[in-house]
Amino acid sequence: MSTTYRPLTETDAVAYVKERGFFPRDAALTCREIGDGNLNLVFHLVDPKSGQSLILKQALPYARVVGESWPLTLDRARIEAEALRIEGELAPGLVPKVIHYDADLALTVMEDLSDHIVMRKGLMARTVYPRFAEHMATFLARTLFFTSDLYLSPEEKKAKQRAFINPEMCKITEDLVFSHPYYNADTNHFNPLIRDAVEALWQNGALKREVARLKEAFMTKAQALIHGDLHTGSIMVKADSTKVIDPEFAFYGPMGFDPGAVFANLLLSYASHEGHTPNEAERRDFQAWLLETIEAIWRGFAEQFAELWAEHVKDEMWNAPGYREAYLRAVLQDAVGFAGCKMMRRVIGLAHVADLETIPDPAVRATCEKLALAIGQALVLRRETVQRIEDLTALVRDVAAERVSR
Amino acid sequence: MSTTYRPLTETDAVAYVKERGFFPRDAALTCREIGDGNLNLVFHLVDPKSGQSLILKQALPYARVVGESWPLTLDRARIEAEALRIEGELAPGLVPKVIHYDADLALTVMEDLSDHIVMRKGLMARTVYPRFAEHMATFLARTLFFTSDLYLSPEEKKAKQRAFINPEMCKITEDLVFSHPYYNADTNHFNPLIRDAVEALWQNGALKREVARLKEAFMTKAQALIHGDLHTGSIMVKADSTKVIDPEFAFYGPMGFDPGAVFANLLLSYASHEGHTPNEAERRDFQAWLLETIEAIWRGFAEQFAELWAEHVKDEMWNAPGYREAYLRAVLQDAVGFAGCKMMRRVIGLAHVADLETIPDPAVRATCEKLALAIGQALVLRRETVQRIEDLTALVRDVAAERVSR
Repeated sequence: MSTTYRPLTETDAVAYVKERGFFPRDAALTCREIGDGNLNLVFHLVDPKSGQSLILKQALPYARVVGESWPLTLDRARIEAEALRIEGELAPGLVPKVIHYDADLALTVMEDLSDHIVMRKGLMARTVYPRFAEHMATFLARTLFFTSDLYLSPEEKKAKQRAFINPEMCKITEDLVFSHPYYNADTNHFNPLIRDAVEALWQNGALKREVARLKEAFMTKAQALIHGDLHTGSIMVKADSTKVIDPEFAFYGPMGFDPGAVFANLLLSYASHEGHTPNEAERRDFQAWLLETIEAIWRGFAEQFAELWAEHVKDEMWNAPGYREAYLRAVLQDAVGFAGCKMMRRVIGLAHVADLETIPDPAVRATCEKLALAIGQALVLRRETVQRIEDLTALVRDVAAERVSR
Repeated sequence: MSTTYRPLTETDAVAYVKERGFFPRDAALTCREIGDGNLNLVFHLVDPKSGQSLILKQALPYARVVGESWPLTLDRARIEAEALRIEGELAPGLVPKVIHYDADLALTVMEDLSDHIVMRKGLMARTVYPRFAEHMATFLARTLFFTSDLYLSPEEKKAKQRAFINPEMCKITEDLVFSHPYYNADTNHFNPLIRDAVEALWQNGALKREVARLKEAFMTKAQALIHGDLHTGSIMVKADSTKVIDPEFAFYGPMGFDPGAVFANLLLSYASHEGHTPNEAERRDFQAWLLETIEAIWRGFAEQFAELWAEHVKDEMWNAPGYREAYLRAVLQDAVGFAGCKMMRRVIGLAHVADLETIPDPAVRATCEKLALAIGQALVLRRETVQRIEDLTALVRDVAAERVSR
C-alpha cells in the first residue's frame, strides 16, 4: 500500500493536472467532481478558454453501497489503467485514451467523453444507436481474441494472467452476481410485489445448480482478459461513437462473460420497456431493435473472431476441423448463461438498474421485473439448447409471449 | 536468476549436507548421483554408520532429451518444493518429507525413499499393490479438494494460483501431450510397424478437435493445484506405502488431469501385458487387477471428495441440489479424456514408457501399442458417455475384446 495516497479535492485535482503540464499553468480551469462517490472520485477538468478537457479518475480505498462501507483495494486503479491501455491498442477508438497513470495516488488521467452519454440513459430514452452493434462486435472480438491462448504465446498469456489476478473485484461478482440473488441473503432487496416470484426462484434447485456451474466457470475458466463489468453503464455512446469505460473488474476469465453482460443489459432494457413505454408501436419497434442489436453484436463478433482466427492462428490443434465452430458455440452458451445471472441479480440483488428502477408504478415495475426474472431463468436453464444467436432471441420472444398471454 | 547457482558434484553434495547439519561433520557419507541426468541431479547420501540417508535433488538449467538440450527454468525447483510441502500437509505420509529448500542452488533436501521402488517397475513385474488404490484416492481427494475454490477463500485460492503459474513446464505438456502426437511433428518417434495406425490417427479430424478441447481445458481450467505429471514413474511404492514424487509440473489446472494420468499409466501397463506376459492366466489376473485398481481409485476418490465436501463446504451455491454429483461427473469425464491423450502420446510422441519399450519383439510391441492407441482414442472420443467409473473400464474391455477378435 502506498504511503502517499490521499483522496484529492477539486483544488488538488486542478493543481495536479497543471503541475504535470496537461494544461497551461495559467489556465483558469473549472473542475467538477462528477463520480457517484461510491467507488471512485471522477473530476471533470475544463479549460474554458481552449475548450480542452480531461477526466481525472481516482480510486477510493473503500466501497460505499447502501450506507455501508468496506475496504477495497486501490490496485484496481492499476488494473483499470493497464486494461484501458491494452484495450486501446487492440480496439483503437473504442475506449478512452489513457494520458497518465499514477500508482501512488491510484489515479488515471484520461480522455474526456462528455460529448457521449451513458448508454443506459440512451436506452431509457429509446435512442437507437446504429453503429453500436458493429463497435461492440469489434471491441469484443479484438480484446478477447488477442488476449487469449489462440493468439498469445503461453508465456505471454500466463504473464498477463498473473498481472490481472484481481481477487477483490472478482469477489464482488462472485457474491453479487453468482451467489446472493439465489437465496435469502442480507444484501438482496427487491420490489415487495415480486416476492412470490423471488421465493419460487430460491426454491428452484435446477436453477441454483446451473448458476453454481456458471459461478465455477467464472472462477476457473481463464480464457481471455475480460472487461468483467460490461453493462450499459460502462458504455458511453453517441450516434457514431462507442466507448467502453471502467474496466476495473478486468481479469482472465471466461470470454462469454463480456458479451453476456451486454446481452443482459439490452434485455433488461427490453423488459423495462414492457412497462414504461406508453406507445405500443414505439415500444415494439424499440424492443425489436434491442433483439436485432443482440443478434448483430453476436454475428459481427463471431465473424470478426473467425477472421482473426483464420489470419493469426497457426497452431495445428486450434485449427482442427470443427474446433473453431465448437469454440464459438461454447462462448455463446456461456454468454447466454452469464446473461441470465446478470439479469436476475439486477432485479433481486444489491445493485439494480435505472431502466427498471425509474418505473414509477410498483405494479407496472413488478410486471417488468418478473419478465426479466423469467428471461434470466430461461437463459440459465436452457443455454445449452442455444446453437446460434437466433435461438437466444427466439427464447426471449417465447418467454415474453408466454408471460403476456397469461 | 540467481548468480550463485552451480550444479553440484558428489563432493559438493556431501559438503552441503554436512555444513547444514543434516549429518554429523565426521560422518563418512557415501554419495551417488542416481538421477537420469535429463532434468535434475539426484544425489543419494547415506551414512553407513547410522544407516541415516537423504536425497538431495537439484534442478539443472536445461532439459536434455534425445540428444537435444533446451534451457529450462530453475523456478521449477521452487514449485516442486512448495508443492511437496502443501501436498505433505494435505496428504500426510503420501509424499517425501521436505527437509530443506535452497532457492539459490535450486535444490531440495528430502526424505530418502530407497526402500520403495518406482511403481512403473513394479507394474512391469506384475506386482500387485493392495493399498495403492486407497493411498492414491486419498492423495487425489485431499490435494485437489483442499486447494480448490470449494475449500479455499477466493483470495487464498488466487494467491496460490499466482504462486504456481508455471509456464515453461506447462508448455512441455501442451506440446508433448496435447499437440505433437496428433500430427507429423519432428519430436515424434514410434515403432515403424504401427505407422498405418498413427497416420490414420493424424487423419482423424474428430479426434484432433476433441484433443484441442482437452488442450484448452488444460490451459484455462484453473480448478486446483494439480501435480501435473502423475504417471507411474512419479509414484514410489512398497507393499504398504505409496509416495508421490516430482511435482515440478504443478500448477492450477483441471482436477481431472491427475487421476487421468494415473489411469493412463495403469492402462499403458494393461496394454503392455497383452504382449510380454507369456502366461495367459497370469496376464488376465494382472490386467483385471489394473482395471479393478482404476475403479477402486475413482470410487475412493469420489467418496472421500464427497465427504470433504459435506464436511467443509458452507457455500450456498456449491451446495445446490445435484451440483456435487455434476461436478464429480465432469472431473471424471475430464480424467477419461486426459487419460486418452496421455496414452497416445506415450506411443507416438517424444517420451515413451518402459512398459512398452521393453517388449523386445517389435511385432508384439506393435500389437500392444495399437491397443494403447485404440484405447486412448476411445477415451477421448467417448469420454462424455462415461457417467461412472464402470463405464470407463467397460470401454477398455470392449476395445480390447474388439482388437483381439480381429
